[in-house]
Amino acid sequence: MIHPTAIVSPTAEIGDNVKIGAFSIIYDHVKIGSGTVIESHCELGLPTPLAKNKELVIGQNSIIRSKSIFYAGSVFGERFETGHRVTVRENTKAGINFRLGTASDIQGDCVIGDYVRCPANVHICKTAEVGSFVWIFPFTCLTNDPRPPSHTMIGPKIEDYAIVATMCVLLPGTTVGRGAFVSAHSCVTRDVEPGMLVAGSPAKPLRKVNELKLKDGTQAYPWVKHFHRGYPEDVVALWMKEDFTV
Amino acid sequence: MIHPTAIVSPTAEIGDNVKIGAFSIIYDHVKIGSGTVIESHCELGLPTPLAKNKELVIGQNSIIRSKSIFYAGSVFGERFETGHRVTVRENTKAGINFRLGTASDIQGDCVIGDYVRCPANVHICKTAEVGSFVWIFPFTCLTNDPRPPSHTMIGPKIEDYAIVATMCVLLPGTTVGRGAFVSAHSCVTRDVEPGMLVAGSPAKPLRKVNELKLKDGTQAYPWVKHFHRGYPEDVVALWMKEDFTV
Amino acid sequence: MIHPTAIVSPTAEIGDNVKIGAFSIIYDHVKIGSGTVIESHCELGLPTPLAKNKELVIGQNSIIRSKSIFYAGSVFGERFETGHRVTVRENTKAGINFRLGTASDIQGDCVIGDYVRCPANVHICKTAEVGSFVWIFPFTCLTNDPRPPSHTMIGPKIEDYAIVATMCVLLPGTTVGRGAFVSAHSCVTRDVEPGMLVAGSPAKPLRKVNELKLKDGTQAYPWVKHFHRGYPEDVVALWMKEDFTV
Repeated sequence: MIHPTAIVSPTAEIGDNVKIGAFSIIYDHVKIGSGTVIESHCELGLPTPLAKNKELVIGQNSIIRSKSIFYAGSVFGERFETGHRVTVRENTKAGINFRLGTASDIQGDCVIGDYVRCPANVHICKTAEVGSFVWIFPFTCLTNDPRPPSHTMIGPKIEDYAIVATMCVLLPGTTVGRGAFVSAHSCVTRDVEPGMLVAGSPAKPLRKVNELKLKDGTQAYPWVKHFHRGYPEDVVALWMKEDFTV
Repeated sequence: MIHPTAIVSPTAEIGDNVKIGAFSIIYDHVKIGSGTVIESHCELGLPTPLAKNKELVIGQNSIIRSKSIFYAGSVFGERFETGHRVTVRENTKAGINFRLGTASDIQGDCVIGDYVRCPANVHICKTAEVGSFVWIFPFTCLTNDPRPPSHTMIGPKIEDYAIVATMCVLLPGTTVGRGAFVSAHSCVTRDVEPGMLVAGSPAKPLRKVNELKLKDGTQAYPWVKHFHRGYPEDVVALWMKEDFTV
Repeated sequence: MIHPTAIVSPTAEIGDNVKIGAFSIIYDHVKIGSGTVIESHCELGLPTPLAKNKELVIGQNSIIRSKSIFYAGSVFGERFETGHRVTVRENTKAGINFRLGTASDIQGDCVIGDYVRCPANVHICKTAEVGSFVWIFPFTCLTNDPRPPSHTMIGPKIEDYAIVATMCVLLPGTTVGRGAFVSAHSCVTRDVEPGMLVAGSPAKPLRKVNELKLKDGTQAYPWVKHFHRGYPEDVVALWMKEDFTV
């Protein structure tokens, strides 16, 4: 299951039924869970003085799409799925079933919850905190230095169930509250209240998200009431029982 | 003409005088027209359940620059030219002489006309419709879900000869009319009239594009009257004869 | 020090103690200074008719991270450092210790000073001029055609010590003055005075940068007075002596 052109360190711990594609490189200090697929032209476990001898752990039944790059020293839960050409630096900790789309870039030293979705081209800075069931859309960038360049790093925080749409900037230290929605092409300069829709640059509160409708006239948010694709049945069952007022 | 390190499926149909670069992978269900160059580190015809047994067709005399990724199930006309590291998913249909710049990402299930130019880093969503002779500039993103996440997908439409400048977002379902110009750093939230210049977030109409001048004082739009580089003579001849009032 | 899977032209000039990683390709007309590391999956010296027989020169003690692409015909000073997947076209001239972050794209025909920092995903257009000690943050794009598509190319100019934050557009021909600060998510449509803070789309002057404070209440700008990481001692010594009023 390891392509003959792949270069795999003898010290890497490779689980059962792992596939490793052509022209990929697996360095030392890498632990790949069983059932995981590493596609072609990847690099896993790039050594860095910032994560000396710390392992890169990829949970079981994951898929790392081609041309992706992971440094040593990060941990990903099971059913991790990446697009192509993601880059992930050291000391990133992500929960289960994280989906990190093509060309996304995680700078490391950050924490990401369960079932987070980043469809493509998302940039997550150091010291960011991302909750569970969060959505972050393409070309959105989290930033951490309020007076660049300086030695300060205060990454933004995105709470559970929040949505940050396409091409937004979250300024350093801002919090996007639980279930809030940041509209496309916004710049978040101050905290966004839970359940609030904001838009603009600087982003201003427009209304509560639960006033927004789907095309059929039903309530669009909280989205967990109608959008279940890719989530496990037990999670969905909880969602349908809970109130989710924010 | 196939580099010895390239991995080419025996079922792929490779035309005459095709070059395939080092460390590239050509999967099944791929048909490459004669005279086409596939540079190094590419992947063509990545299998996906969403395009089961459907061919990837690259027209003749094309150039696919290095590190690009194409899934099975798309069709490109002749003289297709990509930059490096483009990603194209299944069920994309593009006309002749499409130029898709470095790091651009096409999500699939979309239709693109003839002679479209995307200089770099353009993100085209599913169900988008792009006409012919359209220009889309770097970091511009087309989006398709008005209430993310939901099951709705209504991609934007960009009509013939329109220009969408750098770092714009087109919101779901919007139409940029024939020959219109969306200024850099705009967010298109409603339809743009044909031949109209819009700017801002949300983008607002400013004036007719044909009031804009080049440095020498001549009319800048319709651009087909003065910019002909890379278009065939017969097309240009038609442009010079037609009126192009919008 | 050259990985057995790397493909290196016999005419390339490779200095002492150079490392070249797996699956990398070094073309003709490449000159790599001593002590430089070229990681895996790179391409250096891609031939182009626009830089016929012109050398790609990478200064000594540089590091080119994996999956990067350089065309022939550019010159980089010593201690050049790239992230992964940078793309650099012909006729780029950069000074010493340029740091060009992951996924950045330089279109060529441009000049970049000493000690420039582009943390990631920066897009520099043809004919741009970037001074020394400049910072350009992710997803920022420099543009050069005021009436696209046209034959005009007038790249922006960024003067020494200026900072352009995340996700900005610099419109063609604009100048960001010495030590100025362009806030995140701005669109620069006219010249920015030296030492001025601007924000918005279009970007408007807000105040002098030297009125901005760090968290500890001290002056944040000029940044050279408190941020020295990665700069050589003699440069820092000069900074501490000079006045830097702008």
